[in-house]
Amino acid sequence: MNKKGLLIVISGPSGAGKGTICKELIYQQVPNLELSVSATTRNPRPGEIEGKSYFFKPKEQFVEMVNNNEFIEYATVYDNYYGTPRKYVVDKLEEGKDVILEIDVQGAMKVKKNTEGAVFVFILPPSMEELKNRITSRGTETLQDIDKRMHKAYDEVCCANNYDYVVVNDDVKSAAEKIKCILMAEKCRVNRAQIDFNSFKEV
Amino acid sequence: MNKKGLLIVISGPSGAGKGTICKELIYQQVPNLELSVSATTRNPRPGEIEGKSYFFKPKEQFVEMVNNNEFIEYATVYDNYYGTPRKYVVDKLEEGKDVILEIDVQGAMKVKKNTEGAVFVFILPPSMEELKNRITSRGTETLQDIDKRMHKAYDEVCCANNYDYVVVNDDVKSAAEKIKCILMAEKCRVNRAQIDFNSFKEV
Repeated sequence: MNKKGLLIVISGPSGAGKGTICKELIYQQVPNLELSVSATTRNPRPGEIEGKSYFFKPKEQFVEMVNNNEFIEYATVYDNYYGTPRKYVVDKLEEGKDVILEIDVQGAMKVKKNTEGAVFVFILPPSMEELKNRITSRGTETLQDIDKRMHKAYDEVCCANNYDYVVVNDDVKSAAEKIKCILMAEKCRVNRAQIDFNSFKEV
Repeated sequence: MNKKGLLIVISGPSGAGKGTICKELIYQQVPNLELSVSATTRNPRPGEIEGKSYFFKPKEQFVEMVNNNEFIEYATVYDNYYGTPRKYVVDKLEEGKDVILEIDVQGAMKVKKNTEGAVFVFILPPSMEELKNRITSRGTETLQDIDKRMHKAYDEVCCANNYDYVVVNDDVKSAAEKIKCILMAEKCRVNRAQIDFNSFKEV
């Protein structure tokens, strides 16, 4: 039986730790699980690998892909485009791989509109104080930037109700454990289990 | 915050192995998980303990409890009553315990009618051949009994679509693992996660 994989969208406010959790899942080599690779128009940074870090695309090609509806979602960040190529994700799912999409809240809501059958997980920080600590301790942002990020985070937390699951990231390993369980449980859901009940009809 | 427990109903055809899976879960001492205790009018067998194996009740008291709507479900088997006392289950859930109810398909459908928020898991044998092997190898039943059980099992498999999850019991430990994941995942579901989003509104 050809079992299709599951698309799991991991999202949440900046600083909630969605990236760290996804890295932990890949580090643990969860069987059958792969991280989606985004396309971008920005230049590769040292060490980044085409097709693994990103699919690096010239702007004209990216825009053409947008026009051909080849992205599940895309966005512009500081004059650069970023997007999730539909074909890459669909191919992996058809191969039976589970695909993680780590993405911001706005992107996740676009994916929700444009796909069927994906599972949406919202990563919450343990508290807003802790979120502020995490953003501040990066040491890369001005007080004004931090304020802006915190306001955005407030807005985004309200979106959690549009997701299927909420995982509080108080500890990366336990958050990763929960996501592995969500994957396992979703594969057992009656509407997904892909069990051929007819085969239970004859002996 | 007072977190209510989860009621998880484990059901499926006789011979699918639901009892063995529940025993495995209790043996593994899954934190916070308890098996529901049924009431019955039959006499205790050697080694059975009141309040642990069953609540043993005289017939008149059982009937009074039925009339007072004190059972989530009950049934008659060979002139004896068996039932799930509502108060026992509700009290455990209020204490924050997760409660497993191991029950036949007819009982599970009654629980579905009479409760809210429970999670329903259907245990499937790997195949009907394997189910027949299991029932036959018990050595306690006539060929006619086996035929009757198999026919009932066919009917029951059709009910699987009324459940939330289907777990194929090809291996007891892996089936128990899946049920632990289902419990964990259900606790992360947005509508259950009991997260006070208001507390994420101020810093």
